Amino acid sequence: MGKRLLLSHGGGGEESNQLIRELFFKHFGNEILLRDEDAAVLHVQNKIAFTTDSFTVSPIFFSGGNIGKLAIVGTVNDLAMMGAKPLYISCGFMIEEGLLYSELEMIVKTMAEELAVSGAKIVCGDTKVVPKGSVDKIFINTSGIGEVQASDISAHNLEEGDAIIVSRDIGRHGATILAQREGIDIDSGLSTDCATLWPMVERLLDQNIIPNAMRDATRGGLAAVLNEWAMTSDICIELEEQSIPISDDVQGLCEIFGFEASDFANEGTFVLAVKSEYAQKTIELLHTFENSKTAAIIGKATTRKKQKVIINTAWGSSRYLDLPKGELLPRIC
Amino acid sequence: MGKRLLLSHGGGGEESNQLIRELFFKHFGNEILLRDEDAAVLHVQNKIAFTTDSFTVSPIFFSGGNIGKLAIVGTVNDLAMMGAKPLYISCGFMIEEGLLYSELEMIVKTMAEELAVSGAKIVCGDTKVVPKGSVDKIFINTSGIGEVQASDISAHNLEEGDAIIVSRDIGRHGATILAQREGIDIDSGLSTDCATLWPMVERLLDQNIIPNAMRDATRGGLAAVLNEWAMTSDICIELEEQSIPISDDVQGLCEIFGFEASDFANEGTFVLAVKSEYAQKTIELLHTFENSKTAAIIGKATTRKKQKVIINTAWGSSRYLDLPKGELLPRIC
Repeated sequence: MGKRLLLSHGGGGEESNQLIRELFFKHFGNEILLRDEDAAVLHVQNKIAFTTDSFTVSPIFFSGGNIGKLAIVGTVNDLAMMGAKPLYISCGFMIEEGLLYSELEMIVKTMAEELAVSGAKIVCGDTKVVPKGSVDKIFINTSGIGEVQASDISAHNLEEGDAIIVSRDIGRHGATILAQREGIDIDSGLSTDCATLWPMVERLLDQNIIPNAMRDATRGGLAAVLNEWAMTSDICIELEEQSIPISDDVQGLCEIFGFEASDFANEGTFVLAVKSEYAQKTIELLHTFENSKTAAIIGKATTRKKQKVIINTAWGSSRYLDLPKGELLPRIC
Repeated sequence: MGKRLLLSHGGGGEESNQLIRELFFKHFGNEILLRDEDAAVLHVQNKIAFTTDSFTVSPIFFSGGNIGKLAIVGTVNDLAMMGAKPLYISCGFMIEEGLLYSELEMIVKTMAEELAVSGAKIVCGDTKVVPKGSVDKIFINTSGIGEVQASDISAHNLEEGDAIIVSRDIGRHGATILAQREGIDIDSGLSTDCATLWPMVERLLDQNIIPNAMRDATRGGLAAVLNEWAMTSDICIELEEQSIPISDDVQGLCEIFGFEASDFANEGTFVLAVKSEYAQKTIELLHTFENSKTAAIIGKATTRKKQKVIINTAWGSSRYLDLPKGELLPRIC
């Protein structure tokens, strides 16, 4: 029987202190965190980005990642999408009494590894352990602060003619969780796209490619991002269906379950709106990264039908891509 | 039957958007939040404080507050304790499918009211709705950013001779939750001390009273704060037992259940270590606030037994006040 988390590990007393020192400080340790005050004191540029996300994914371990990787990637990516270099992350664990210590340790180690990709640091944290049945295994909240390096990247800023680019094949995270929950064994080893996007964004900004808009296509998938952009920027987005990269695995799962890959969550896939003259350069830069080597131009911003997303098919017909309704997959992230 | 939260309210699609607009934006609305990007862009001084806390209290409504009030107070107070003016708060809701919409609305309204006390704003948020049984009603994470206005307030900075001051009678939050769970009806209307501490801190700083250390005595209570200070600053803290303010209600509950009020959580009670020459002025300033009108000097920092907290009784004996062990009351905050 492995060691398990006890209520006292979250009680604010001796056992909490032990957990903090022996697990969190060991893996996340940095000068700021180790000061261990009520709040971390940070020196920042005067323009920062601030974001928060809670992670409730089930199962907590899945092909290509776990809830800890997701918790770092999710928040770091939200900062990156604002053109902000991820710097400081907070971490709130809400743990069910009885969780295996070894599972928590694996989650924490993964978080530390993923932080190294962007260079961000965990500088403050909080741990609650709640009685069995009060939460399912573990939820994690991460909030993050980044230094804004490029202004005016915003869902409000799409312009007619902008190229719409997606960084890789869509729907992998949603498809992976779905397959795992349904017990479907995918021969090819379908795994989540879960990945830190800052390296790609940093390269683009370094090359003076400042997208008009940029967003990771998480819950609600590509469909949610594009519909939000169309509405917020009062513009039409037209996609060419055959240009949207979708892997055979994901497409196959969609057909079995009657889902659209464009509604599926991604955790390491982002969408960009760039001025058309930068489109080719953007694609070339993205193709130099393993995680975006299938990046593709999938459409453009037009005025055909404002506030709508239209998909043009290979057969010359077209249809609306609507905002997903209902809850496709609860606890996807 | 009241309206209830559905999984789709957290799905990232149309129903999520509705919830955000009709509830969160309505009550929390401010220019930054309403831009509704992946992250809020903020202008700050170069020295900020950053903190996070998750709230899992049960029951979610209790005498004198609810989980929403606690979520604002807890994070705002962590900033205040670092001498930082609370400015920007993030808010992550993790909600159980089926929660009454009216309950969520009441929580959100209370949060907005409590934010007004310090002037802090919610600038980013995230909502997850998880299937029934995956979380007990609602958990809330808040993280916060404040502008540091006084440096060197730290658990590391206690000095021999410092007066130890507590801002009011201790243990009310713990006692209130305990009484409510046990179904004990307290005639006098015992209620939580849950309150925003920034107004008191701001007044002290305005009057150039910069405590060496300052901390709100939340989980683990007075005992946890003082033991941490004694260890971190390598000093002894000696308390005079009869000087520690404890209400009759709290004392009575402690006697019934065999607890110590000094181990009980507080949510609007803070402890200060100030140079002895400022002690009287500090007390006078604190007494001008309703929430700290029973502030008292309860002891001082000495070198009698380093890294220990000693209580001197009225009868001339003395004993150690140890760090609380185990979990007194799960889900207290």
